[in-house]
Amino acid sequence: LSVQAALIGLGNMGAAMADRALDAGHDLAVYNRSPEPARRFAERGAKVCASLAEAAAHGGIVLTMLANDAALRAVAHGPDSLIASLPPAGLHVVMGTHSVEVVRELAASHAAAGQFLVSAPVLGRPEAVTAGKLGIVVAGPAEAVARCRPLLEAIGARIFAAGDEPGGAAGVKVANNFLLGCAIEAMGEAFALTEKLGVDRQLFYEVITAGLFAAPAYSVYGRIIADADFANPGFTARLGLKDAELALAVGSLAGVPLPSANVWRDHLLSAIARGEGELDWAVMAREQARASGLA
Amino acid sequence: LSVQAALIGLGNMGAAMADRALDAGHDLAVYNRSPEPARRFAERGAKVCASLAEAAAHGGIVLTMLANDAALRAVAHGPDSLIASLPPAGLHVVMGTHSVEVVRELAASHAAAGQFLVSAPVLGRPEAVTAGKLGIVVAGPAEAVARCRPLLEAIGARIFAAGDEPGGAAGVKVANNFLLGCAIEAMGEAFALTEKLGVDRQLFYEVITAGLFAAPAYSVYGRIIADADFANPGFTARLGLKDAELALAVGSLAGVPLPSANVWRDHLLSAIARGEGELDWAVMAREQARASGLA
Amino acid sequence: LSVQAALIGLGNMGAAMADRALDAGHDLAVYNRSPEPARRFAERGAKVCASLAEAAAHGGIVLTMLANDAALRAVAHGPDSLIASLPPAGLHVVMGTHSVEVVRELAASHAAAGQFLVSAPVLGRPEAVTAGKLGIVVAGPAEAVARCRPLLEAIGARIFAAGDEPGGAAGVKVANNFLLGCAIEAMGEAFALTEKLGVDRQLFYEVITAGLFAAPAYSVYGRIIADADFANPGFTARLGLKDAELALAVGSLAGVPLPSANVWRDHLLSAIARGEGELDWAVMAREQARASGLA
Amino acid sequence: LSVQAALIGLGNMGAAMADRALDAGHDLAVYNRSPEPARRFAERGAKVCASLAEAAAHGGIVLTMLANDAALRAVAHGPDSLIASLPPAGLHVVMGTHSVEVVRELAASHAAAGQFLVSAPVLGRPEAVTAGKLGIVVAGPAEAVARCRPLLEAIGARIFAAGDEPGGAAGVKVANNFLLGCAIEAMGEAFALTEKLGVDRQLFYEVITAGLFAAPAYSVYGRIIADADFANPGFTARLGLKDAELALAVGSLAGVPLPSANVWRDHLLSAIARGEGELDWAVMAREQARASGLA
Repeated sequence: LSVQAALIGLGNMGAAMADRALDAGHDLAVYNRSPEPARRFAERGAKVCASLAEAAAHGGIVLTMLANDAALRAVAHGPDSLIASLPPAGLHVVMGTHSVEVVRELAASHAAAGQFLVSAPVLGRPEAVTAGKLGIVVAGPAEAVARCRPLLEAIGARIFAAGDEPGGAAGVKVANNFLLGCAIEAMGEAFALTEKLGVDRQLFYEVITAGLFAAPAYSVYGRIIADADFANPGFTARLGLKDAELALAVGSLAGVPLPSANVWRDHLLSAIARGEGELDWAVMAREQARASGLA
Repeated sequence: LSVQAALIGLGNMGAAMADRALDAGHDLAVYNRSPEPARRFAERGAKVCASLAEAAAHGGIVLTMLANDAALRAVAHGPDSLIASLPPAGLHVVMGTHSVEVVRELAASHAAAGQFLVSAPVLGRPEAVTAGKLGIVVAGPAEAVARCRPLLEAIGARIFAAGDEPGGAAGVKVANNFLLGCAIEAMGEAFALTEKLGVDRQLFYEVITAGLFAAPAYSVYGRIIADADFANPGFTARLGLKDAELALAVGSLAGVPLPSANVWRDHLLSAIARGEGELDWAVMAREQARASGLA
Repeated sequence: LSVQAALIGLGNMGAAMADRALDAGHDLAVYNRSPEPARRFAERGAKVCASLAEAAAHGGIVLTMLANDAALRAVAHGPDSLIASLPPAGLHVVMGTHSVEVVRELAASHAAAGQFLVSAPVLGRPEAVTAGKLGIVVAGPAEAVARCRPLLEAIGARIFAAGDEPGGAAGVKVANNFLLGCAIEAMGEAFALTEKLGVDRQLFYEVITAGLFAAPAYSVYGRIIADADFANPGFTARLGLKDAELALAVGSLAGVPLPSANVWRDHLLSAIARGEGELDWAVMAREQARASGLA
Repeated sequence: LSVQAALIGLGNMGAAMADRALDAGHDLAVYNRSPEPARRFAERGAKVCASLAEAAAHGGIVLTMLANDAALRAVAHGPDSLIASLPPAGLHVVMGTHSVEVVRELAASHAAAGQFLVSAPVLGRPEAVTAGKLGIVVAGPAEAVARCRPLLEAIGARIFAAGDEPGGAAGVKVANNFLLGCAIEAMGEAFALTEKLGVDRQLFYEVITAGLFAAPAYSVYGRIIADADFANPGFTARLGLKDAELALAVGSLAGVPLPSANVWRDHLLSAIARGEGELDWAVMAREQARASGLA
C-alpha cells in the first residue's frame, strides 16, 4: 500500500527517514530549506519540491522533522506555509521533538483550517532508523493516524499508539528524554561517590551494566562517564539544556513539578557557564565531580 | 577446593547463601541469634553453632549477613563476639548492606586484633541467589579475598573485584541502591507527567522498557508504578529511606553531595509521614502524583 | 524643577505613582488602555491622552508600569507604539517587573530608533508609594537617568543606582522577589518542622521576628503562615509562579543555577495543580505542611 | 531571688552566661573538664567544682552549655555523671544546641531517675549575652521551668516559652539555624545572579538590607558575601554542615522533608570537599559563584 506524501527537513534524521520510506516504495516528495541535502533524493526517484506549497500539494500529507519549535512554527504559519497550502482534510505529521504547547497550538490551527495534525516523535538516533530499529510514538485523531500509519511502519520498527490527543505523544518523547537525563545525572553522582571511595570507574561501570541497569541508557552514557570522554558529543550540553527546559515547561503547563529535572538542568547550566556547552551532555557528570572536590 | 567457614545470620538471604555453599561442598557451620532458622541446616550436614565463639572457631572464617549496622556492631564487638573469638589471621567477610563508616571501623578493629576483614556485599534478592544469578562486589586485602573466594564463587554467579579497601565495596553497594532509587523517582515523575497529558500508563511503560531503559530496574519498578501496586512490598518505604540515608551518610563522609538522593529521600519521608511506610518504596511515585494534583 | 512626561498604565501601582508625580508639580500626561482609570487625573490637571502617540509626544519621556512582558512588548512595538512615536532622543522608563531579556531587547530597539531606555523597577506595593517609602532601582545611560531622576525622586523615597546597563536593574528586581520567595519557602519548612514537634506557631513566629529575622519579609509572611491565612491574597500563587519562572529564566540567560528557586517553584506548581492558584503565594507553606503529613 | 545552681561548660558562651548569673547575684558553682577556664570565676566568688558530682550537689540544678551531642551524652551518662549524681527532683537545664533525639533521650533518662530536664537553647552569640540581648527558648515541665526561670532571666533578655515538651525548644533552635542557612544560601544565589548581570555587589547589598530584608541575618551575612570575606569565620563551614545535618536529622525524626536545607548542605559539603571547611559558612555563596562560572 503506497502512500503519497512529502517529508520536510532533511537533516541526518529526516534524510534517514526519507530513505526508509522510499525503500518501502512510498511515493515521497522531499523539501529542505537549503536545496543541497535534497539533491540526492532526485536520483532515488523522489520529487524534489521548490516550496512548502508544492510539498503540501503532494498527496496532502506532510511529515516534518525539524530542529525546534521556532522552525516548526515558521513552517506551519506564514505566507508560504503548511496551514496555507495543505488542502482540506490535509494532514501534518509532526515528527521532531517539540513542546506540548506548540503541538497543541498547531493542532488547533490546522483544525481551524479543516486539516489534521498527528504527533509522531521518534525514539532513536539516525543509526537506529537505518538499522530498522526506530520507535515511534503516535497520537492524533484515529482516522488521521490510520492514513499515515503505513509510512510510519516503513520508517520505524515499533509504533506506540498514545491516544488521540497529539500533545500526549509529544509529552511521551519529552518524558523519555527527561528519564535519560535523570539516569545520566544519577550515574554522575554515583561515579563521583565510588571514585572518592577509591573504586575504579571501569569496575563500577561493569557492576551497574551487568545488573539492574543493563540497558542502553546506562551502557552508552556510563561508558562516556567512566572514560570522561565528553569531547565527542553525540548530543551537546546546550541541546541537553534545551531538553531539560522542554521538560520543565511541559511540567509547568501540566501542573507537574519535576524535581529530578531541576538537578541536571542546574548541572548543565553550570557546565555551559564554564564554557563547556559544546561537550557531550554527559558532562553534567563533570560538574558533579567538581562539586565533590574531584578534578 | 572445600573451605571451612561459618555463616552468621540466617534470614531469607543468609539461608539461601548457606544452601549454595553447602551445595558446592563447602564445610559450613551456621549460627543465628534465634535458633529456629538454623535447625534445617543440621539435616544438610552443617554444623549448627550455639555461640558466636563456636562459629568463629570453625575454620577461622566467618561470613555475616545481617540486617543493619547495629546488628553488625553487636556481633563484632562485645564479650561473645567475632573480634574476641576469631583466631589470629581470622577472617570476617561482611556481606550485608552497611555504611562505609562501620565497615572501616570494623576493619580497623579486626586489624588491631591481627585479623582481616573483607567487604563482600551482594547485588540481588534471595531468588537471585537460588537461581545462581547473584552478583557479589568484593574488596579487601588480596590474600584475604583469595581465601574466601571459593566460597563467594559458590554463592554468587559473578564476582566484581573492587580493590583492597573494604569501604570501596560497601560504597559500590550503596551507590547501586542509590541509582535504583533515582530510577524509581524519575519514573514516578515521568509517569505523573504523561498521565496528566492523557497518556495511558501501560503505554508509557511499554515505551520506556522497549527502548533505552530495557533493564530490570525499570521493568520491575515501572510495572509497580504503572499498576499503582504498592501494597505488596518487595522492599518497604521505611527500608528505602534507610538506603537513602545510607547513601547521604556515605556522601557526607566522602565529601560528595548527592542532590538526586535528596529528591527521593524527601518523597519517602512524606510517604512515611502519611502512614505509608510499610508500602513498597516505589510509593515515592504516589507522592509525586499527589504533588501533581493527581489522586 | 518640573519635568514634562507621560505615564502609561494606571493600575493600582501606576495610579499611585502618577499621584506622587503630580503632587510634586511635574507636568504629567497619563494614558491607560481602558479609559476609566485615567478620568480622575483630568481633575488633577493631568493631560489625559487618547493614544500612545499622544503620550509619547508629551515631553518625549514615557514611564510605563505594565503587568508583564507581553503588555510591555505590545506598547513598545506595533503601529501606534512608543518606538514609532517617541521623538529622536526620546526616553522610555520601564518601571514594571520584567524579564532581563525583554528589557535588553527593547533597549536595543529604542537605540536603533535613536531613543533611550532606562530600567527603573520599583520595590514595594502601592501603599508604599502613597506613604512615600518606595524604593526604585534605576539603570541606564547616565544622561538618560539624569533626565528622569527628578520624576523618580518624586515617586520614590530611595533611588538605587545600578549602573548603565538596563538589564541590571531588571535583574535586581527579579533577585529581590526571588529572595522573598526563598524566605517564605524556608519559613514554610521551619513552621512545619516545629509544629510537628509540638511547638505553637505563634511562639515560633515571635522567636524569629524578634531576632535574626526582624524584617518585613518575615513579619508579613510569617504572620500569614502562622495564621494559615491564605484566602486574602496580597499576591497570588499564580503570580508567585510567574516570579519564580522569571527568576529561573534570568538565571538561564545569565548562566546561573538557582537551586533555591526550584524548591518553591515546585511547591507553587503543586498548589496550583490542586486548585489553589488564587490563594496567597505563601500557600507554598501549605504544600510543605502536606508533604510533612500535616493537615 | 537567688538560685543555687551549677554551670557546666565554660567555653566563650558558657563563661559569658556564668558572668551574667553571677552579676545578678545567683549562687553559682562552675565546672569545666579542663580546669583553666574555671579559675577566674573563683575570684568572682563562684564555687569551682572538681567533679560533675560536686557540681550536681550544688543546689541540685545544673545548666549545661556543651559543644555537641557527644559531649552532652558523656556528661549525662557514665560513672561520674549528672544522672548518677543529681539528687531526686534534681534539674538538668540543657542550653547548648542539640538534636531533638538526644534531648528526648536524656529527658527520659532523667525522668527514670526521678529527675527533670528542661531544654533552654540560646539564640545569639557570646557578645549578645554580654550586651544583655540574648534570647532563650525554654521548654519542659512547668514546675521545672519555674525553678530555673530566675536564672534564665538573669542570663537572657527575652524568654520564649515553647511548651512542656523539651524537644520542642531544641527544635526551635534547630529551625532558627536552618532559617539562617536558607537566607545565606538564597543571598549567595541572588548575589551571583546580579553580579553576572553586571550589578555591583555593594549596591545589591544596599537594596536588600534597606528593604524587605532589613534584619541581622541579611545585614551580617550579606556583608560577608558582598565583601567575599570568608577568611575570618564567625562560624565555620564545618560547623554549618553540622547544623544542616542536625536540621535534616530532626526532619527525619519528625517526618518533615526540608528541601531548602538540602540545597545549602550540598554547597557546604562541596566547600569542605575543596578544603574550605574552616572558612566562614557563608562560603556556601562561593560554591554558588563557582557553579555560575564566576571566580
